[in-house]
Amino acid sequence: MKKTFTHLDEKGASRMVDVSAKNETERVAVAQASVLTGPETLAAIHDRKLPKGNVLEVARVAGILAAKQTSSLIPMCHPLNITSVKIDFTDNGKDNIYIRAEVKIVGKTGVEMEAMTAATVCALTIYDMCKSVDKGIVIEDVHLISKSGGKSGNFIFNKED
Amino acid sequence: MKKTFTHLDEKGASRMVDVSAKNETERVAVAQASVLTGPETLAAIHDRKLPKGNVLEVARVAGILAAKQTSSLIPMCHPLNITSVKIDFTDNGKDNIYIRAEVKIVGKTGVEMEAMTAATVCALTIYDMCKSVDKGIVIEDVHLISKSGGKSGNFIFNKED
Amino acid sequence: MKKTFTHLDEKGASRMVDVSAKNETERVAVAQASVLTGPETLAAIHDRKLPKGNVLEVARVAGILAAKQTSSLIPMCHPLNITSVKIDFTDNGKDNIYIRAEVKIVGKTGVEMEAMTAATVCALTIYDMCKSVDKGIVIEDVHLISKSGGKSGNFIFNKED
Amino acid sequence: MKKTFTHLDEKGASRMVDVSAKNETERVAVAQASVLTGPETLAAIHDRKLPKGNVLEVARVAGILAAKQTSSLIPMCHPLNITSVKIDFTDNGKDNIYIRAEVKIVGKTGVEMEAMTAATVCALTIYDMCKSVDKGIVIEDVHLISKSGGKSGNFIFNKED
Amino acid sequence: MKKTFTHLDEKGASRMVDVSAKNETERVAVAQASVLTGPETLAAIHDRKLPKGNVLEVARVAGILAAKQTSSLIPMCHPLNITSVKIDFTDNGKDNIYIRAEVKIVGKTGVEMEAMTAATVCALTIYDMCKSVDKGIVIEDVHLISKSGGKSGNFIFNKED
Amino acid sequence: MKKTFTHLDEKGASRMVDVSAKNETERVAVAQASVLTGPETLAAIHDRKLPKGNVLEVARVAGILAAKQTSSLIPMCHPLNITSVKIDFTDNGKDNIYIRAEVKIVGKTGVEMEAMTAATVCALTIYDMCKSVDKGIVIEDVHLISKSGGKSGNFIFNKED
Repeated sequence: MKKTFTHLDEKGASRMVDVSAKNETERVAVAQASVLTGPETLAAIHDRKLPKGNVLEVARVAGILAAKQTSSLIPMCHPLNITSVKIDFTDNGKDNIYIRAEVKIVGKTGVEMEAMTAATVCALTIYDMCKSVDKGIVIEDVHLISKSGGKSGNFIFNKED
Repeated sequence: MKKTFTHLDEKGASRMVDVSAKNETERVAVAQASVLTGPETLAAIHDRKLPKGNVLEVARVAGILAAKQTSSLIPMCHPLNITSVKIDFTDNGKDNIYIRAEVKIVGKTGVEMEAMTAATVCALTIYDMCKSVDKGIVIEDVHLISKSGGKSGNFIFNKED
Repeated sequence: MKKTFTHLDEKGASRMVDVSAKNETERVAVAQASVLTGPETLAAIHDRKLPKGNVLEVARVAGILAAKQTSSLIPMCHPLNITSVKIDFTDNGKDNIYIRAEVKIVGKTGVEMEAMTAATVCALTIYDMCKSVDKGIVIEDVHLISKSGGKSGNFIFNKED
Repeated sequence: MKKTFTHLDEKGASRMVDVSAKNETERVAVAQASVLTGPETLAAIHDRKLPKGNVLEVARVAGILAAKQTSSLIPMCHPLNITSVKIDFTDNGKDNIYIRAEVKIVGKTGVEMEAMTAATVCALTIYDMCKSVDKGIVIEDVHLISKSGGKSGNFIFNKED
Repeated sequence: MKKTFTHLDEKGASRMVDVSAKNETERVAVAQASVLTGPETLAAIHDRKLPKGNVLEVARVAGILAAKQTSSLIPMCHPLNITSVKIDFTDNGKDNIYIRAEVKIVGKTGVEMEAMTAATVCALTIYDMCKSVDKGIVIEDVHLISKSGGKSGNFIFNKED
Repeated sequence: MKKTFTHLDEKGASRMVDVSAKNETERVAVAQASVLTGPETLAAIHDRKLPKGNVLEVARVAGILAAKQTSSLIPMCHPLNITSVKIDFTDNGKDNIYIRAEVKIVGKTGVEMEAMTAATVCALTIYDMCKSVDKGIVIEDVHLISKSGGKSGNFIFNKED
């Protein structure tokens, strides 16, 4: 296996890997998380007569803010000036909300962790907003969907991997 | 369904629910996350001749720090003076790391979100430390294991729910 | 004038005033801010056929989160475990949105700055959400409406003062 | 009205608007806030025999630090590497302190919110430093004075708007 | 040696040590740092005809704010509601500024790290304010002066230790 | 003395000095701190049969994270996208740990404060991890070792200065 842990040096010490010499290119990363709310909670989120979508809108704002906190949360992440964050929700009409977070940058390193963090904190916020109704909600299938830009090339998640 | 979204008022507006009148009691919450690293990455984490455990130790520190950032990340969470955070790792000896985060407080409200956030940011950090080796790692089964203390009583996660 | 600047010592040095000996009591503070959007922007916020209220809902989340950041923003403020934050919007039906932020705590010192900060950051967020439409929006009349609890007694804002 | 809320997508969902394709240019924004201290408090700030200016100097530091926290406070703001922050105070010699905050950047998007946030947190800090003397202080006339740089052109605040 | 690293468990894993069962008592910690500015820089700080003390006043505000960030900076520190922070400066009249930071709390654990962090960030800020004049400034003698309160008893720094 | 305090304007007001017109160049700064642990504590850190190095590894993570918080801690520092952070430990085999922090950037201003902050917070964390064993540990000799890049030229610390 030639691939190595770039956040560890040859002696195993953690470090923020040096990206000084890398080119600034446009980079995009997309991540997802799935929130298994169960049917009753999903219905409660959608069927309310009140201004719709507040649970999801609060979660979306949390996810967007979290993308900007990535380098404070994940120790070896570089601080980055991300140029775009979008979070979309879909559901299976039954018991599961899917979160898709897309982050962009023009910079020296990618935004995979920003997308992963946005999706995850968004999912945690849905849990928080719903936990007075159901504490058994499960967050699943958090992974990178794709990345593009940068020297290491593109990545597309492959279920078969 | 009598249970309601306590972080939304009767008009659907989000709010930090009022816990002023609640008693201060000892509360414990335990959450888990699972990181499906695959066999090669798990072996690489464990088999290194270098000072062992650095990937996991960095992730543990990130999780402990994240527990303390919960109220900055999750919009409706109360700021809390947590009194203990512990994060343990186990694995299935094959391809999967299990994270268990336990958080305690003596306070007016529970620490479920602190435990969930600790486990999740810990998992994200493992992903970050390993993503130069494998970008296809998946975070799964993030959920509350148990909580105790407080008026709403104890909770134990039940797979059958 | 017997009242003094408690955040300055007798030599004029700034300090976080010592509240160690104060009693823990329930304290409430309410603050307001007014956003003079003009009639077209107010109509645009309200008349959208899209899920209503997103501008205000994003602003509300920002205000609630900001209340929790008060002691990081205002140098001499004590870090506090606030127990409740509520933000309400009303408008004059024409050109002005009124923000009312209420914050509670059971603690040794009051939450006036938390309420002021919540109202103000909420107003700034409305500005941000609307500035692509109108950069001339003005934030006005930011002040404490009332406070209760604590040794210094209650306060009610008096326009005539 | 052709102008649209750029922080909302076509379905009304909030987002951090994509500035990836914009050019890096020098951009300047100036904002103001006014603090109606009343005559006695203004005199107390100025007439002290102690090292002068501490109330204002603490407020200035708070405003400069707050400019750097803008993207953590205002949900849809881009994280930016601002290159300059200056905060000046003037007063009307009677009862009113005027704050003027100027922020610069060489970047893809403007710094209006950084200037507005600097002016506002500076004003809140003056309130905090003086509230032991007078809780009735009002913050008024918070608005953008001017901006330059960027594709949308220059802006100068016009009282008649 | 019976004393142990309480932030490490029996297997050497880091943790936030559990203080749930400890009593809330008043606790005070005092720390110091020394900034060896050299004679010219010290004179420049003191002899300016401009509003005096700005270098030190900015540093003081930074130290007070930093005390409140301790649990975000030092991984195993508990988040605490400190009730008082004071920072004093003295100098040897020649080439050295001494910083003394005192922090108080009524809580379950001490504030040694808060006092140490306040003194240190204050010293770093003096360095930053002066580094355009002299990059060779040295920060020395950062240590706890004393602590009181809590079960482990009082501590007074002893040069002979 | 022609050198001036660039973070103060001609009237002595603090400001974030304007670097808008400066060129983006690669800049490196190296700082050090020394932790006088005493012989018993140093032996305890090294001689443990448990996974070695946890005290130092936790401190290293804290230092790396702190480098990214520099502009939040030091009031006049510019927010910067640092591209590399490395922290190394050596000791004198007796009673003293030496911390060396190297930070890089391609940017308009240097990273001296980032290196100083990384070294210092790393030292504070060693203190925190060891203070249950010895509260008398002293942090010494915190200074810049070298900087390169930028218009002001290179700097190398000279003990004789």
